[in-house]
Amino acid sequence: METIWKQAEALKPELIARRRDLHTHPETGWTEFRTASLIINELKALGYEMHFGAEVVAEKSMMGRPSVKELEAYMKRAITEGADPVLVEKMAGGKTGVVGILDTGRPGKTVAFRFDMDCNDVEEEKGEGHRPAAEGFCSTHAKAMHACGHDGHVTIGLAVAKLLKENMDALNGRIKLIFQPAEEGVRGALAMVDAGVVDDVDFLFGGHIGFKCTQADTLVTMTDGFLATTKMDAEFHGVSAHAGAAPEEGKNALLAAAQAAISLSTISRHSQGSSRINVGVLNAGTGRNVVPDIASMKIETRGGNTEINEFMVKEARRMLQAAADLYDVKVDISLAGGAPASIYDKELAEEIAALVKEKCGYAHVLTYVDMGGSEDCTYFMDRVQKRGGKAAYMMYGTPIAAGHHNSHFDFDEEVIWKAAATLTELAVKYSA
Amino acid sequence: METIWKQAEALKPELIARRRDLHTHPETGWTEFRTASLIINELKALGYEMHFGAEVVAEKSMMGRPSVKELEAYMKRAITEGADPVLVEKMAGGKTGVVGILDTGRPGKTVAFRFDMDCNDVEEEKGEGHRPAAEGFCSTHAKAMHACGHDGHVTIGLAVAKLLKENMDALNGRIKLIFQPAEEGVRGALAMVDAGVVDDVDFLFGGHIGFKCTQADTLVTMTDGFLATTKMDAEFHGVSAHAGAAPEEGKNALLAAAQAAISLSTISRHSQGSSRINVGVLNAGTGRNVVPDIASMKIETRGGNTEINEFMVKEARRMLQAAADLYDVKVDISLAGGAPASIYDKELAEEIAALVKEKCGYAHVLTYVDMGGSEDCTYFMDRVQKRGGKAAYMMYGTPIAAGHHNSHFDFDEEVIWKAAATLTELAVKYSA
Amino acid sequence: METIWKQAEALKPELIARRRDLHTHPETGWTEFRTASLIINELKALGYEMHFGAEVVAEKSMMGRPSVKELEAYMKRAITEGADPVLVEKMAGGKTGVVGILDTGRPGKTVAFRFDMDCNDVEEEKGEGHRPAAEGFCSTHAKAMHACGHDGHVTIGLAVAKLLKENMDALNGRIKLIFQPAEEGVRGALAMVDAGVVDDVDFLFGGHIGFKCTQADTLVTMTDGFLATTKMDAEFHGVSAHAGAAPEEGKNALLAAAQAAISLSTISRHSQGSSRINVGVLNAGTGRNVVPDIASMKIETRGGNTEINEFMVKEARRMLQAAADLYDVKVDISLAGGAPASIYDKELAEEIAALVKEKCGYAHVLTYVDMGGSEDCTYFMDRVQKRGGKAAYMMYGTPIAAGHHNSHFDFDEEVIWKAAATLTELAVKYSA
Amino acid sequence: METIWKQAEALKPELIARRRDLHTHPETGWTEFRTASLIINELKALGYEMHFGAEVVAEKSMMGRPSVKELEAYMKRAITEGADPVLVEKMAGGKTGVVGILDTGRPGKTVAFRFDMDCNDVEEEKGEGHRPAAEGFCSTHAKAMHACGHDGHVTIGLAVAKLLKENMDALNGRIKLIFQPAEEGVRGALAMVDAGVVDDVDFLFGGHIGFKCTQADTLVTMTDGFLATTKMDAEFHGVSAHAGAAPEEGKNALLAAAQAAISLSTISRHSQGSSRINVGVLNAGTGRNVVPDIASMKIETRGGNTEINEFMVKEARRMLQAAADLYDVKVDISLAGGAPASIYDKELAEEIAALVKEKCGYAHVLTYVDMGGSEDCTYFMDRVQKRGGKAAYMMYGTPIAAGHHNSHFDFDEEVIWKAAATLTELAVKYSA
Repeated sequence: METIWKQAEALKPELIARRRDLHTHPETGWTEFRTASLIINELKALGYEMHFGAEVVAEKSMMGRPSVKELEAYMKRAITEGADPVLVEKMAGGKTGVVGILDTGRPGKTVAFRFDMDCNDVEEEKGEGHRPAAEGFCSTHAKAMHACGHDGHVTIGLAVAKLLKENMDALNGRIKLIFQPAEEGVRGALAMVDAGVVDDVDFLFGGHIGFKCTQADTLVTMTDGFLATTKMDAEFHGVSAHAGAAPEEGKNALLAAAQAAISLSTISRHSQGSSRINVGVLNAGTGRNVVPDIASMKIETRGGNTEINEFMVKEARRMLQAAADLYDVKVDISLAGGAPASIYDKELAEEIAALVKEKCGYAHVLTYVDMGGSEDCTYFMDRVQKRGGKAAYMMYGTPIAAGHHNSHFDFDEEVIWKAAATLTELAVKYSA
Repeated sequence: METIWKQAEALKPELIARRRDLHTHPETGWTEFRTASLIINELKALGYEMHFGAEVVAEKSMMGRPSVKELEAYMKRAITEGADPVLVEKMAGGKTGVVGILDTGRPGKTVAFRFDMDCNDVEEEKGEGHRPAAEGFCSTHAKAMHACGHDGHVTIGLAVAKLLKENMDALNGRIKLIFQPAEEGVRGALAMVDAGVVDDVDFLFGGHIGFKCTQADTLVTMTDGFLATTKMDAEFHGVSAHAGAAPEEGKNALLAAAQAAISLSTISRHSQGSSRINVGVLNAGTGRNVVPDIASMKIETRGGNTEINEFMVKEARRMLQAAADLYDVKVDISLAGGAPASIYDKELAEEIAALVKEKCGYAHVLTYVDMGGSEDCTYFMDRVQKRGGKAAYMMYGTPIAAGHHNSHFDFDEEVIWKAAATLTELAVKYSA
Repeated sequence: METIWKQAEALKPELIARRRDLHTHPETGWTEFRTASLIINELKALGYEMHFGAEVVAEKSMMGRPSVKELEAYMKRAITEGADPVLVEKMAGGKTGVVGILDTGRPGKTVAFRFDMDCNDVEEEKGEGHRPAAEGFCSTHAKAMHACGHDGHVTIGLAVAKLLKENMDALNGRIKLIFQPAEEGVRGALAMVDAGVVDDVDFLFGGHIGFKCTQADTLVTMTDGFLATTKMDAEFHGVSAHAGAAPEEGKNALLAAAQAAISLSTISRHSQGSSRINVGVLNAGTGRNVVPDIASMKIETRGGNTEINEFMVKEARRMLQAAADLYDVKVDISLAGGAPASIYDKELAEEIAALVKEKCGYAHVLTYVDMGGSEDCTYFMDRVQKRGGKAAYMMYGTPIAAGHHNSHFDFDEEVIWKAAATLTELAVKYSA
Repeated sequence: METIWKQAEALKPELIARRRDLHTHPETGWTEFRTASLIINELKALGYEMHFGAEVVAEKSMMGRPSVKELEAYMKRAITEGADPVLVEKMAGGKTGVVGILDTGRPGKTVAFRFDMDCNDVEEEKGEGHRPAAEGFCSTHAKAMHACGHDGHVTIGLAVAKLLKENMDALNGRIKLIFQPAEEGVRGALAMVDAGVVDDVDFLFGGHIGFKCTQADTLVTMTDGFLATTKMDAEFHGVSAHAGAAPEEGKNALLAAAQAAISLSTISRHSQGSSRINVGVLNAGTGRNVVPDIASMKIETRGGNTEINEFMVKEARRMLQAAADLYDVKVDISLAGGAPASIYDKELAEEIAALVKEKCGYAHVLTYVDMGGSEDCTYFMDRVQKRGGKAAYMMYGTPIAAGHHNSHFDFDEEVIWKAAATLTELAVKYSA
């Protein structure tokens, strides 16, 4: 379908401008007020039926949310930077998820596309060698940078919205464009899934710019090997005491946390696949001569499949409690993020490849790449698959200036229109 | 009172014979069937009112008892070696405690003397340099030896029984002679105390041959510095699994026990005095390639006073459970022994010293020696003191051939009649 | 080649008798004096060139050898039970490996077959349901039983020796029959490999009765998934002290060992494949009130490939030393066994399958089974492959009465002649 | 000697003004530039021979010094607040110790008085109930407050300087007034002692306002029970790695530090007296999904005597290194402070009591109070005692508004002139 490919290419100048605007105003997880506001207004203008805020984000399932005070500050900033105050207010509490629906009115399938919106906690490089700096679209927010390409993802989503409208006649059923907050730290997907946004979806497509696909003109139709993961925070509360005068009156939170770190590392290996455990951060104590009464730690588990990760989490939870019991202190464990593993759908991967080879201009189409990491798009995929639908996670090939999450990260903006064209083709095919 | 001192000296030959008979037939804690049988018959013959078996040993408070099977084997051996079968049967289950009462029928105080009967798990030296070997009264029991002088203590008790009868006119009130099983491992005293055998006692006297008093003609009227102690056994039960094929199916008792040993050692020091913790023995696992499902450990705590020891025990119990929880295994904790600390009664120490200087032939009388160890006579002392009575723990000076619990241990038998005479003087004085 | 299959079947009665004789006289690793003596004499009688003792077992590479005293006792027992005293003497020190060579005098390849000889530390079931008991060929040695079928393996080897002689005309080059001690605990192969016994070998074939192939009339031509493994013993030596009176004078070997067990379990997971660590046995300390001065532990590591296992061993060795340093004690680490991983030779597996389908009477021939365990035949295979040869590890299908290493283990003796025929066919084919 | 007592009382108004000026300008350890400058100029004006800077502070023995950058900032602040720029420059690097010598020219003893100058890292209470706030002499420095009375100590020292000059005729030998930096954290005494400032001293007197003596009109002539202490910082450096993708490439500094904290807590109790160990602060790691490459901890040990503390330090140092070795990371251990224990000089305590009762107006004079903490004045005392001199640490009774180191701390300024008079009496007596 040469037309869509060409239509997309024609959008290039405005897509680049949009991506650079987003790059200049990056927003971290659960604070994408400006980004979401912009998406809502743009899709509304195109005639999409819009859902956002509490309607598409289940509060009980939001993980790793910033404090109320922080959220309020970010809302103000978004408004200052051009967000619609009415919309921002409706997304209060960080409910920045957005779903736009295009209903063709014709029978057909429901096809969903998922895009993530948040940036990283990274201070962007300002030196000459960094194109965003050289060309003047660097982040204007301290310690915030689109270093994982989600600015590109949002732009692809907006491009798809336009292309779909231009090709209404070729579509059937309903198309859902899902914009998710807080992918970094795998915190945001569950809340949208638990709000039911993909419960009616027959085909769900997610994807990522670059990553293990850093050649232009390349498309990976399906990745596999997502590790299931859970992110947990633990806080230990004991009783302080003078370490010289009355040590026995203390309840030592530092020793409890240190022991927890050691014990967690002893969780048994699993014969059914990969497992991981990491205590990445541990802070404890207030002063040299005081029996420490507080300690906190950041933990993550992973598993080659969801069951193994659940085994790790179950072991970890019991051990955290037992380590606290050892020193008679309290421990609070909170979920800070998570994602299941994915199931590789070989048939779909090959079907997409066949379609793409026919309709799109990629020089290379691969049907498999091993991810070796975690992504909470798997929550959407898992829900869709469990309800009888199909799902794929693609990679859109592009050269990158530096690794993801690196302060020098940048990508070739050509990838935007190509990915948008590809997704539009999928909408045509799978909505039928 | 020159008479008692002389009377006692006259008993020397028969006392030495008795001590050597006991030395030849040593019996470990809770298996003193022959020793007790002999005591009962001898005191009965002198006219004492006898109590023994379940009457003076509270089963629920017996600590560190051998298995039923072992006890039965020891009962048979005792009978083979001359014990009275009827008496042995009444002491079934290891209830080998004996109390003999001499009631003068006159008003007065109740004065009790406590003697311990058990031997050590030591293989006695058989070489020439060892007097019991040279003179033919070595232990005839494998891995059992009176290496702590309790054969001497029992003989002193029997001598006191005779001397009291010879001096009935000088006595008042009631005199109780208490023979306790299982002092080694501090296991036996509590069961007799809990049976109430000293609840009516006004004055309680215990003591030991040698120890920190290894000069002949010396008496220490009061020791102090007994550390309170608790002996515990812990058994961990997990689930075994093939360490290569399915390690995640195991529940690792070895790691739980190892962690418990480490954690116990981290119990806080105590600002109010000495504390101790020791895991002396740890055995775990069945084979190199099996996730271990069993582990056992022998633990002891000590404290400069009873409260500190209780702090240690409380911490240890919680930690043992928490260490088991860490690895999702079960732990059974059993009490294997214990003794409280003692309270030094300076007034009584000096009063005894004055009496002894007047009546007995000691060259040296000391009113204080620091013990620096544990002895469950403190259970008797503690009960008596708490009910308003008074108590002393003495040391009877004697040269020794080697340290207590050593396979070369032996003592100068002169100490027997001297100690017996001294205790008889105390009976006269304190029963009034 | 119907002839060999038939020839082998004709040997059945004598093979069963031989296997039952071996079953009655099981010998554990490094003590196979009777077994080896019997093999030597039997092969010598057939005209094989025999090598055994120090010639084929490199002393420096013997792992997990019993003590000199134990070995001497086993030598005596073997002689009592019919072993040739002269041969036994030549195998002193446990050098019970045997190599028999059949040189055809014709040009050709060198083909080797490897059989293991040792039994397990298992007390054999004596009840009626157990065929060896019912039919009178139970082990006559306490705590020793052929519970892994090595009696069958040796019998297969002896049958192959006969069949080769009967088919000399069909053979070329040289055939080596290798009988290895101490496979249990993966202790014996390295010493024979380091003695150079397979340095001239072009094709090496090993195999096992049953295991993951418990159907009769089935042959697995190649197994894979052997985990590389290392078995280590660690002994900690500290300084004892009275736990109450002078704990600071002790150097605590129990805490060092306990910490080592915990720390070993924290070795990082490996991203390149499976890893395992197990402390299967830990024994420490002498008495409850003594700071423990001794501790010992049995450890094993495994890896999905040899490099991962080496990573585990390197980490473990450093951690054992550091754990000793923590408590200022000494640690001695000794190698108790080990085996590398294997490389799957798909081409050979399929070639054997083709041959076997043509020549032998198996109903089922599989070219792949995952082992999921360790076997030190991999040392032979690894050496041969590294020197340019080829190697296969087969499984000979047979129903079994209970799992390997179980006291109820038994197998269908039909498997013996079938396996012998198969190996003889391989000799014919690969010696050409 | 009524005269000195009266002379001192007459100084009251100027002493209060001076103390309040110091209280308004508190300086933390090694940054007492203004305080020292003021002392130097005041004593110089009185005719004292002044020594300060590198002359009286041995650089190699300065513990827990701030960074060069911080020191420079504090030097600037001091000058801004009136310090003499020339003097401040001579104390660069934090060498803020001062010694003033009064040489009578007459034969006699050398008597030294030691005063500490630094403030605490405490934000002073600004509310009405706090007298310094109500009366306008609160700290003007953020997070810095004289919450331990060292402003009082310096004022006492300045008062003594005046009183000595007024009573030159009554004095003999030489009098040394020592002003020490960095007592908080026990960091500063060693550097002055190692510079030799008390090597010629016959009598050394230190002391403290309040503490365990909070009644006015009370003097404690000698405290005991200082615990020897050592403060150490440990920094662990490992290698970071992605916790999901390549955990085996990391060298985990967090686990090393956690293990160190646990292991340190297992250092054996000591039979010869009190011991303490505390890891008061532990910070490790950079992010949840990164194997942590950095960790730092603040440690302190204590001992009932210097030998026990040295035992603790030796054990701790070995364990820190071994814990680092466990995880193959590096550890740097730096000394952050320390003090030996003290020896109680009963004779001197009683002699001072007798003098004071005769000459001074105290209602109560005690010869003993147990300190139960640490103070680096013990470095001075220890050096003087080891060289044959005598030393005492006194407490000057005063009501206090809140505990030492509390943000509400304040004391009754009456104590200043009384303590100054008392010390002057000691100078008269002991210089003879």
